[in-house]
Amino acid sequence: MGRIICAGLGPGDPELMSVRADRVVRAARHVAYFRKAGRPGQARRIVAGMLAEGCAEHAMEYPVTTEAPFDSLGYIRLLSAFYDHWADRLARLAQTAEVVVLCEGDPFFYGSFMHLYTRLRGRVCVEVIPGVTGMSACWTLSGEPITWGDDVLTVLTGTLAEEDLVRRMTDADALVVMKTGRNLPKVRRALARAGRLEGAWLVERGTMEGQRIARLADVEAADCPYFAIVLAHGHGRRPEAAA
Amino acid sequence: MGRIICAGLGPGDPELMSVRADRVVRAARHVAYFRKAGRPGQARRIVAGMLAEGCAEHAMEYPVTTEAPFDSLGYIRLLSAFYDHWADRLARLAQTAEVVVLCEGDPFFYGSFMHLYTRLRGRVCVEVIPGVTGMSACWTLSGEPITWGDDVLTVLTGTLAEEDLVRRMTDADALVVMKTGRNLPKVRRALARAGRLEGAWLVERGTMEGQRIARLADVEAADCPYFAIVLAHGHGRRPEAAA
Repeated sequence: MGRIICAGLGPGDPELMSVRADRVVRAARHVAYFRKAGRPGQARRIVAGMLAEGCAEHAMEYPVTTEAPFDSLGYIRLLSAFYDHWADRLARLAQTAEVVVLCEGDPFFYGSFMHLYTRLRGRVCVEVIPGVTGMSACWTLSGEPITWGDDVLTVLTGTLAEEDLVRRMTDADALVVMKTGRNLPKVRRALARAGRLEGAWLVERGTMEGQRIARLADVEAADCPYFAIVLAHGHGRRPEAAA
Repeated sequence: MGRIICAGLGPGDPELMSVRADRVVRAARHVAYFRKAGRPGQARRIVAGMLAEGCAEHAMEYPVTTEAPFDSLGYIRLLSAFYDHWADRLARLAQTAEVVVLCEGDPFFYGSFMHLYTRLRGRVCVEVIPGVTGMSACWTLSGEPITWGDDVLTVLTGTLAEEDLVRRMTDADALVVMKTGRNLPKVRRALARAGRLEGAWLVERGTMEGQRIARLADVEAADCPYFAIVLAHGHGRRPEAAA
């Protein structure tokens, strides 16, 4: 009787993987991971050099390479069938073997594995190992704590409508924007309208090769990196150093 | 020339420490950690059995054992002098040695180390290793992903006024409340007023011995565990499984 273990791999640097995820990945006989067709895949890249000899690899290739609108019915149907297909395949494999699903970041925080998870639970034994989130790595790299005292942290996705972004950014103390990508110009406009552009940072490919940390105000609006997070720090209550 | 490394230790289970934090802790010649007077300290407990022989331990004991109101001037002055004192001691040590500061969770996310950090940077070399947050461990233990699609995640502290809690809970998709402790009755009332009590979970001592996961509605209001996080999951957009 096998099972499925989803290993959260953290933000990108293999050293930020948990001790448990590291051990599970190195011992795996089967690994599965999402990737876009024709790409190596970010999760697979993180474990480069770690897989045991003879480990079987199951690349779960997304059915679309160009991003269709999130709300198009065709896109949603295609994705749903894709997750159904892979849930069935992994469930079959897990009847006799242990399968490690590789997931960047923390699997239950905007992770793709969640779509397999809801289809697998109750059918096979599933274990999830939490990971360091991309946002934790990014605020650590920024060199400033993200939340102080009573600060409220608001995590938004760049896919929200501009008016929603403005309203929530205005109300936030500390602020993280996920899924920026081609939404970056909109995110930037919303930050400016909320009066938060000055203190905002863009962290691109955090803890990975080609990492860049910049004040968002200094970044060209047309420059929309994919693995990027925008953040603005809170400034809450703290006991100040004596003068 | 030494330096200070703050190692984020994650939520409690030593297996959820990062590979890098694990290595740094095991190799440490000096470790420092916060604790309440007369208590072993949560950070120190996580690394039980991991410290090398002869490793010097610097227990940074908080000057107060009973929690004074956060906004009392006396409390703030006392804390400030305490952080000043330890920043000076660690800075002196770090002139010749490497000092590892042990911090539960992720150091830059409501962590006590932040108060030393702002006093140390510019004086000595400081490195921070991000960790798995307590909240990631808690939503993983709950067995439900926390955020889907465009869900907004709002992280609140139980120290906020009840009206603020209600307003922000009403506006949140996914929801995490930190620093519950004796604020739990207030947090619970606010969740009920915001119509979110039914879906709320209490995770106490997540990933540690004595762990408890319960629907908050089923927990006695008088039962206020210290290491507890309250969460309510988002229910955002997702491609449903085919019927």
